[in-house]
Amino acid sequence: MKNNNYSIAVLGAGNIGATVIDRLLELDGELVNIDLKKVLVADTSKKRDFDSSLTTNSFEEILNDESIQIVIEVLGGLNPGKEYIKSLLEKGKSVITANKDIIADCGQELIAIAQKNNVCLYFEAAVAAGIPVLKPLIESLRGEELTRVAGIINGTSNYILTSMEEGSSYEDALHDAQELGYAEPDPTNDVEGLDAKYKAMILSLLCFGVSPTSDDVFTEGISSITKEDFGWAQRLDKTIKLVAQLDSSDSGFNARVYPVLVDIKHPLASIRGALNAVLVEGKNISQLVFSGPGAGSAPTASAIIGDVLSACHQLESKQTNWYPLRSSVAGSKSIESVESSWFIRLSVKDESGVLASIAGLFGEQNVSIESVIQEGRGDNAELVLVTHEATEENLTTAITNIANLEAVSSVTSTIRVYS
Amino acid sequence: MKNNNYSIAVLGAGNIGATVIDRLLELDGELVNIDLKKVLVADTSKKRDFDSSLTTNSFEEILNDESIQIVIEVLGGLNPGKEYIKSLLEKGKSVITANKDIIADCGQELIAIAQKNNVCLYFEAAVAAGIPVLKPLIESLRGEELTRVAGIINGTSNYILTSMEEGSSYEDALHDAQELGYAEPDPTNDVEGLDAKYKAMILSLLCFGVSPTSDDVFTEGISSITKEDFGWAQRLDKTIKLVAQLDSSDSGFNARVYPVLVDIKHPLASIRGALNAVLVEGKNISQLVFSGPGAGSAPTASAIIGDVLSACHQLESKQTNWYPLRSSVAGSKSIESVESSWFIRLSVKDESGVLASIAGLFGEQNVSIESVIQEGRGDNAELVLVTHEATEENLTTAITNIANLEAVSSVTSTIRVYS
Repeated sequence: MKNNNYSIAVLGAGNIGATVIDRLLELDGELVNIDLKKVLVADTSKKRDFDSSLTTNSFEEILNDESIQIVIEVLGGLNPGKEYIKSLLEKGKSVITANKDIIADCGQELIAIAQKNNVCLYFEAAVAAGIPVLKPLIESLRGEELTRVAGIINGTSNYILTSMEEGSSYEDALHDAQELGYAEPDPTNDVEGLDAKYKAMILSLLCFGVSPTSDDVFTEGISSITKEDFGWAQRLDKTIKLVAQLDSSDSGFNARVYPVLVDIKHPLASIRGALNAVLVEGKNISQLVFSGPGAGSAPTASAIIGDVLSACHQLESKQTNWYPLRSSVAGSKSIESVESSWFIRLSVKDESGVLASIAGLFGEQNVSIESVIQEGRGDNAELVLVTHEATEENLTTAITNIANLEAVSSVTSTIRVYS
Repeated sequence: MKNNNYSIAVLGAGNIGATVIDRLLELDGELVNIDLKKVLVADTSKKRDFDSSLTTNSFEEILNDESIQIVIEVLGGLNPGKEYIKSLLEKGKSVITANKDIIADCGQELIAIAQKNNVCLYFEAAVAAGIPVLKPLIESLRGEELTRVAGIINGTSNYILTSMEEGSSYEDALHDAQELGYAEPDPTNDVEGLDAKYKAMILSLLCFGVSPTSDDVFTEGISSITKEDFGWAQRLDKTIKLVAQLDSSDSGFNARVYPVLVDIKHPLASIRGALNAVLVEGKNISQLVFSGPGAGSAPTASAIIGDVLSACHQLESKQTNWYPLRSSVAGSKSIESVESSWFIRLSVKDESGVLASIAGLFGEQNVSIESVIQEGRGDNAELVLVTHEATEENLTTAITNIANLEAVSSVTSTIRVYS
């Protein structure tokens, strides 16, 4: 590999782009010979840390430069990156991107274009940034029948939940995350689970060969989780995590993102702060966990550099890479039929017969109750229930009916229990 | 990949061999077309679950069959596997092995033979069985400057230590492990750290490009760890793990295996029972952890199948695989100069001046003390010390001198603290 020269262009020179360029220059001559040809920037007059003669504001210049073999896309956002990647693959260039939005949106289409043109498309950095997880999943575990992939794949929300576990309110934790630069001024994408949803869509494609739309992936964020929920979680020897969960069984495939109560001894419970983790279960491997930094320019650049070396290796063999995985899933399973155990907090009036009414409404929906704790008396009593496993449909119906009971002031929380 | 046929032979049909053969037959036609040509067994008359016409007791028959492209070695033990692998690589066949003894013994030589003959040599199963860790290390993290690889890579000793954490004595925990088939009737290889040492030697080669001899890797097992040590560990919010640790810094490279006190919140502390984990630290990735099943025929076969698919992929390109890594380490660092903090238990006579004498002897060796707890009075007092970081040389000298003090009846335990 070392004897060959690889000509590379980079689209974008923001934080990640600049870090990637530094790493490419460091790498040159060490493991491979790299000829950094062009860097696409919006403003070519701006001073850069790297050789300014490399900058161009013309994508066409890069597209039409026949010597360029590998292009790294780190522009961010859906457009114009999406069309750029298509054009580059069609021109026979290999592409590396860190862009989860693009891969979630049209990963399957891009993979097909890459295959047709016998070039590579890598995007290790798009899920769990610095953790090498996509390559082991699609190469090392290619022969494995996976049954579950579950991940803490949004560092911002995990940072917030970890602070809350340590006693912060949601508002304080979010504020800290914003101060530290973990959360955007508008944190919606992270705290409402949208970022995790995009990554779940990519994992669905890679691990199970299915390409759910954004609407197919049921998504609930963490913005309604409270300090009190954490207090209860601790009493139950659990913590709360935002988990993207993909399950495949004889009853079908389902991908979803929501906060869950996780047993304190479960590997996902120990993933703290801005870390990410991906848990993989399969017939022969029982359970694997990959954890590490899920964000930041250095880890993201590290994943991109790994992809660059893979692309160089593959270029020698004139092969495309390992996509796509076969789809071996038994159809899709709707969120309504997904079964889980729920943790439910209710504000109730402490009067005779309340629990009987509630239990009756659960019973009507075939939901059985594992445990009930009542705290407080009078009009401000709190009832905390954990159910046995039941379908989302039955649970949501039961809870709607319970909310309508005169003695129930409010349904304070409903959180699924990870199992 | 699917359109080609790959001709494969398997050396050995024990537990793992039989599981691999099952998986190959399952895989055939699914992801690749596999032609299982021959299985080397000692006794061809024994009835098998697979087609008995495949068995042979002649290695030469496999070696000289020009149609065979990939050979899986699962004989176990150093001989005759080692010579078989050499001959196969020299004949231009790609080899997959799960055999840590062979790779630890002569991995570098075998890799050189594979490269010279432009064939593949894979051994994912040799370290941490079912966890895909070697491929991510040498491919995804190839561009990363690694500073540490630390692993719980012996399931048997981790099972024993986990039982002890839960209250068992060493003897009971070992007995249970033997009953469950986790430990051999003679458990020396596992409990004295030899198995972990071989794996540490393989990781040294792959991650740092150095090939330490067996003597180069300082190794201490777990057989002297007691229930009382665990009691103390818990008081210090720690647990005890057998860790293989490879460090590379400006002061050089060192690989070693020994039990360590690990903070209860550290990711390695949560690796329980027969699980394995490999922790990786580098300049840009901060810390990654890969965990999963470290033994068993199904996870081992899963790693072998991953390697088979890699070999098929590489065969198309007529390339050898990614070895070797460059050696970028700054020379080797002796165990004597490795610095750590130690946990030390002493049986002492509770008389005036004892602590002063002990502290004096530590001071002579530049070892400073972080904390001291005395329990009990009279002739059976116990002194528990945790030191600040100091070199092995200084610590062992200080402890030898302390053991010679008249007021010190015995040095009950010395355990390093992981940091």
